[in-house]
Amino acid sequence: MTESSENYDLVILGGGTAGYAAAFRAATLGMSVALIERDKVGGTCLHRGCVPTKALLHAAEVAETAKSAEQFGIKAEFQGIDIEGVLAYKDDVISKNYKGLQGLVKVRGIDYISGEGKLTGTDTVQVSNDEGGVTVTGKNIILATGSEPKTIGIDISGRVLTSTEALHLKDVPESAIVLGGGVIGVEFASVWTSFGAKVTIVEGLPRLVANEDEAISKNLERAFKKRKIGVKTGKMFKGVTQDDDQVHVELEDGTVLDADYLLVAVGRGPVTQGFGYEDQGITTDRGFVIVDERQHTGVGNVYAIGDITPGLQLAHRSFAHGIFVAEEIAGLNPAPLVESGVPRVTYSEPEIFSVGITEKQAAEQYGEDSIETLDYNLAGNGKTVILKSTGIIKVVREKDGPVLGIHGIGARLSEQAGEAQLIINWEAFPEEVAQLIHAHPTQNEAIGEAFLALTGKPLHAHN
Amino acid sequence: MTESSENYDLVILGGGTAGYAAAFRAATLGMSVALIERDKVGGTCLHRGCVPTKALLHAAEVAETAKSAEQFGIKAEFQGIDIEGVLAYKDDVISKNYKGLQGLVKVRGIDYISGEGKLTGTDTVQVSNDEGGVTVTGKNIILATGSEPKTIGIDISGRVLTSTEALHLKDVPESAIVLGGGVIGVEFASVWTSFGAKVTIVEGLPRLVANEDEAISKNLERAFKKRKIGVKTGKMFKGVTQDDDQVHVELEDGTVLDADYLLVAVGRGPVTQGFGYEDQGITTDRGFVIVDERQHTGVGNVYAIGDITPGLQLAHRSFAHGIFVAEEIAGLNPAPLVESGVPRVTYSEPEIFSVGITEKQAAEQYGEDSIETLDYNLAGNGKTVILKSTGIIKVVREKDGPVLGIHGIGARLSEQAGEAQLIINWEAFPEEVAQLIHAHPTQNEAIGEAFLALTGKPLHAHN
Repeated sequence: MTESSENYDLVILGGGTAGYAAAFRAATLGMSVALIERDKVGGTCLHRGCVPTKALLHAAEVAETAKSAEQFGIKAEFQGIDIEGVLAYKDDVISKNYKGLQGLVKVRGIDYISGEGKLTGTDTVQVSNDEGGVTVTGKNIILATGSEPKTIGIDISGRVLTSTEALHLKDVPESAIVLGGGVIGVEFASVWTSFGAKVTIVEGLPRLVANEDEAISKNLERAFKKRKIGVKTGKMFKGVTQDDDQVHVELEDGTVLDADYLLVAVGRGPVTQGFGYEDQGITTDRGFVIVDERQHTGVGNVYAIGDITPGLQLAHRSFAHGIFVAEEIAGLNPAPLVESGVPRVTYSEPEIFSVGITEKQAAEQYGEDSIETLDYNLAGNGKTVILKSTGIIKVVREKDGPVLGIHGIGARLSEQAGEAQLIINWEAFPEEVAQLIHAHPTQNEAIGEAFLALTGKPLHAHN
Repeated sequence: MTESSENYDLVILGGGTAGYAAAFRAATLGMSVALIERDKVGGTCLHRGCVPTKALLHAAEVAETAKSAEQFGIKAEFQGIDIEGVLAYKDDVISKNYKGLQGLVKVRGIDYISGEGKLTGTDTVQVSNDEGGVTVTGKNIILATGSEPKTIGIDISGRVLTSTEALHLKDVPESAIVLGGGVIGVEFASVWTSFGAKVTIVEGLPRLVANEDEAISKNLERAFKKRKIGVKTGKMFKGVTQDDDQVHVELEDGTVLDADYLLVAVGRGPVTQGFGYEDQGITTDRGFVIVDERQHTGVGNVYAIGDITPGLQLAHRSFAHGIFVAEEIAGLNPAPLVESGVPRVTYSEPEIFSVGITEKQAAEQYGEDSIETLDYNLAGNGKTVILKSTGIIKVVREKDGPVLGIHGIGARLSEQAGEAQLIINWEAFPEEVAQLIHAHPTQNEAIGEAFLALTGKPLHAHN
């Protein structure tokens, strides 16, 4: 057991998306940086979140393509899921990205410290690891310890899983119940359905993806019903039991649902216990670290970023937080993040993207008579017809004012979040988008068409 | 044989993308509109251009997915191409879009006149058809008679095809020679390769897609070589003969290439002969109708739009032309089209998009020392790794100035043209893009990463 001590410009507790983004930006700005991580750099997103789930979702897309190949004139016989192959592919995707990330940590000259860190002073982190440990001090400290699946008291074991376990499942379930109709729930429901499982989603709220515009939820529910996914909205979970073969999920209304597995996907909570945050005077609320709009905790030079701060739990928000705080520490006076301009994506089949606010939120904020909306039906979009998909692009604007929200659902639509976020963040008027040219035949063109229709110049718009 | 006469606010000669877009916008603005077409509304793009080729390209993608399914853990056996099925799918895509378009023509109250139109006065079009014919006069006339494949004197028959014939080929070629490495040539080379053919592209210029940035051409050539597509650049075509089994293509250097088919894809020329344009005093140059920046021919109230005017031959440029002239006639004083802001897409595998100017063009216009470029390698993009693809996003900027060009190559990248064209058309500075948040993990994120790297804040950038 050796004990050493190092001083840095910046010490970061947590090597997930928020932490490493801060480390990279700070190193680029010339700071000496220690990045402390007890598991693997990349965190939830890379190892048990966004990246592996999107790999499964792509495998699911490949399965759907193979199943439907004949509709496109391609002779192919779908013969099932080779789950070991799927997991190997998923692990290879993680591994490639992980290697790239480790390379970047090295190249940028960051001191990566493996171990369990604890905040023992407002400028000190004590790290315990197999080599004994090290005490590091930093002129600045960033807390970025991330999030983990919530379990609302349900025992996660055997056939009862969170997304973490589900990603390693060596089984293609014949049936599954998904508790929670949010992003993670509908993504897993989508994957398992493509893999051949009979899936039922149980959601307490009246609709799936309840944070999205109602038109999007309605479209998703329709698409999922067409895919034979059971959708039980407005149903409260009561309890679960399991035996060797099945789980038995009881709802408040007395219904009992049986399936091979239960996935508990009721959201993610901050990981902030046991790190000494409160002992150093840092304010937390229901586990979240409370910060001002510049991500400062109010204590010393201690900042908190990513999923441990209240708001959208998204990797790209974490990246932005990390870059922001590194620049803040460097005295560059960066502009704080505007959460309403952060794009949101659900990678189910069909995919959902949204930026800005929903029709309901706009009506509440501006008054129903002061907003306009347009639903563009993707049936009028040539590329959507080519993909044999359906869906909508929905635009919400302030009357005679800027675009307030852009929402879309359809195959592969995640990629439209880029143009949508520019429109929202640059506070464009619909007229400024409508006059610009979108490439034909793309799905992207549907954004152009929606704005043409909204501004009274409908081209291929049937409604 | 009956002869009748009708008067309109606007008479449009040609029902392709340019013509019908003008008709729709004019009708929305309250004009009475006659739309004259000798074949089918939708023109080249819908019936023998963009839409059917993209359907074939999607079928090709399905074939590639089936072939490579195992890499993603999906058990599927690729058993070949059912060419009748492919053609039926393609025809169904056309038919769905065609029906939609016909519906829109009706709903908008446009008089659709089927027949061969001829400009017989500066306000008069004489239409001949099976019912005898009709003479229509218009306060305004729009010429929009489109384009057709150039054949540079090659006899198109038997095994020597243009894209028009290739779209109906009831054969999966075992081998093909593609004369021309531009957009159409590389798209067909891509499709036929996915369908199992041994394809060789012959191009006189030193590189494929020679209008694109050199880095894009280099990437495409590398990708095509990996796909075993023969790429013979800098090779001049001399002649072709055919017998019952094969074509024999002779190059200037004496090489003779044999294959099942030769596709002549050497560009498209304007269709302006036999319509009486010159007789009415309209200026043409090598077949193109010459117009001012407001699409006016200089004769009466006669305008020309789309592929018969010099410039990019793209359906979405035609849409924009049509909308522009309708608004011009209505006195709305619209802003003329800026061609450099029009997105360009090549839908081969890999796909290419670009907006704005290339590095070489920028160096010529601004001076080599006054520009900056950044190549972002998609190996650092998580979604690209998930898709098992490769490629780049390349950004060209004026030093301390706006973005001048955005270029990309990789699977499915056509969809990135939307954000790219906003950046170019809004004359954004890289710093304005870099500060905004792109969704993780998307391909779109690579645009954000490229701008982060260009502005000195590299995140997942390895170069």
